[in-house]
Amino acid sequence: MKVGGISERSIREADDATAVVVVDQTLLPGRFVTARLETLDAAAAAIRTMQVRGAPLIGVTAAYGMALGLQADPSDAGLDHAADTLRATRPTAINLGWAIAAIVDRVRPLPSVDRAAAAWLAAREMAEAEVRACESIGRHGAVLLRERLAASGGKEPLNVLTHCNAGWLATVDWGTALAPVYRLHDEGAPLHVWVSETRPRNQGLLTAWELREHGVPHTLVVDNAAGLLLQRGMVDLCVVGTDRTTRVGDVCNKIGTSLKALAAHEAGVPFYVAAPSSSIHWALSDPAQIPIEERSTGEVSTDPVVPVFNPGFDVTPARHVTALLTERGVCAASEAGLLSLFPERIREP
Amino acid sequence: MKVGGISERSIREADDATAVVVVDQTLLPGRFVTARLETLDAAAAAIRTMQVRGAPLIGVTAAYGMALGLQADPSDAGLDHAADTLRATRPTAINLGWAIAAIVDRVRPLPSVDRAAAAWLAAREMAEAEVRACESIGRHGAVLLRERLAASGGKEPLNVLTHCNAGWLATVDWGTALAPVYRLHDEGAPLHVWVSETRPRNQGLLTAWELREHGVPHTLVVDNAAGLLLQRGMVDLCVVGTDRTTRVGDVCNKIGTSLKALAAHEAGVPFYVAAPSSSIHWALSDPAQIPIEERSTGEVSTDPVVPVFNPGFDVTPARHVTALLTERGVCAASEAGLLSLFPERIREP
Repeated sequence: MKVGGISERSIREADDATAVVVVDQTLLPGRFVTARLETLDAAAAAIRTMQVRGAPLIGVTAAYGMALGLQADPSDAGLDHAADTLRATRPTAINLGWAIAAIVDRVRPLPSVDRAAAAWLAAREMAEAEVRACESIGRHGAVLLRERLAASGGKEPLNVLTHCNAGWLATVDWGTALAPVYRLHDEGAPLHVWVSETRPRNQGLLTAWELREHGVPHTLVVDNAAGLLLQRGMVDLCVVGTDRTTRVGDVCNKIGTSLKALAAHEAGVPFYVAAPSSSIHWALSDPAQIPIEERSTGEVSTDPVVPVFNPGFDVTPARHVTALLTERGVCAASEAGLLSLFPERIREP
Repeated sequence: MKVGGISERSIREADDATAVVVVDQTLLPGRFVTARLETLDAAAAAIRTMQVRGAPLIGVTAAYGMALGLQADPSDAGLDHAADTLRATRPTAINLGWAIAAIVDRVRPLPSVDRAAAAWLAAREMAEAEVRACESIGRHGAVLLRERLAASGGKEPLNVLTHCNAGWLATVDWGTALAPVYRLHDEGAPLHVWVSETRPRNQGLLTAWELREHGVPHTLVVDNAAGLLLQRGMVDLCVVGTDRTTRVGDVCNKIGTSLKALAAHEAGVPFYVAAPSSSIHWALSDPAQIPIEERSTGEVSTDPVVPVFNPGFDVTPARHVTALLTERGVCAASEAGLLSLFPERIREP
């Protein structure tokens, strides 16, 4: 999407195809700076320190990280080391493990001399597939937004509430939750986005920055304000992303998501989750088995005398999700709903 | 309660009885500093800038502010000016208007020469009444906490979730929501308090400071974490304060309270509201009529290009409140419940 009028992506290949260039998201919204990742360790560090973040982008960065690792050591040991290093960076987003496994499966049968190039190609395909998936989510989601706008009887703008950042910064382009927003805005529809701050890391500021750069009207609120906005009819629909979706439609996403979903449910406001298939953990039906990342206490308080607990994610039960937006269309947040769009998964797990 | 082992109050009279001394809460938790308020304008500014905050303390400070105003100008015009000035400071807490009206009613019939002393005496009585009310809320609330602890089958400690600061800093002493916590802790019961940050002004840090100074085990979390804590059985009960309670038991309190109440309701965890009668707006049954203070955008973001909406309060519907804790005992969050404890209000409004 646009930054200063120029189309950007959150990750791209360097011209010499020996490195990738990412937007350093730890410096946003203050400064738009890119970082060049040339090694496996640089890619792992970028994920761990959240220079790159968002489940789809984490997956793509890990795929390129595998390629970078194999450029340095294409042996079996090098392959295993790269996979282990990247897998240890963050625990919750399913895309990470999925992307690493896909690269490993693809290159292990190959002679070591061919592995780096094959991994690079696979990472590129993965990045392009994420872009296509997000664009498609945008197309399917925009139908819902248009319907809601049409049903509002001329009340404008359409007020959308989101949480965290599930925009192009979190993916490669378009975003997941924000893809329908960008699409509708580009069509000229009257939209306004309520952006929740998303403590402790304030990824809402990334969303506000994205929307401002692309020209979408928006307002920042603290996470605590979601209840009031929904109570007072100031939200027409909610749309968020997901770090891991279970086979039965439960959604593990940024801490605080479940409170917004519950409040939307209470207020009778639709709550959509933009879930590219890369976020779906087909083998998992019990959300209690999802590892919830516990992050540094310093993200909440830098005062060493204050005891802190800092979980990064929570689980929104499928019953509070109005529908899932996938690249193949919109479905109920249930096993039947997901399998209606992904019938090839019927025999799993 | 205790600060560095010494008993403190959030407001006290200066030794010469011509000023009041308050804890400057804008400097906490970093520094424990008191401020001397010698004039009406100083009292009004202290309320407006949140040097003093919390519904009960706002009421008491306004009462002393009336006395300070009358010391300078005890005429009818001076009385009206003092009342208008203080009433304009903050809109949501009912205690403010209630305290000002009580002083006006008490001193208007008096000759102007007697007004300042009478107002001073009335303010002192009000402060002492708040302390007694909080102590009593603590006694009644502690019964509930003890029952819950006994029912836990030996699982310790009792995990209490609170929001914002409804401790002694928000009242004069003891606190409202924290009064039962302090009482049970002083009895030696095993307690742990989850303290939510309470963006945008982080009054949770005041709560963490209070609890640390008094020796009560606690952990700070971001507001977003409440859903996960409640989902995972990490909270045994919730207790919060209130800025204005309607006649039918709806609770207007710090923004974010309604989300916690909803999540507690969903999880089947008791949600108590400590409501001294000074917080009850007997003439009001429709919470939509409560003015919701909209505060400075700078509390949320200091970046001038970011549009911000910053409402200070929300309404928790009575159906999500397990019970109200008042100075006369515990009652259902309903008109019948409140009138069972305050039968003298039956003929109102």
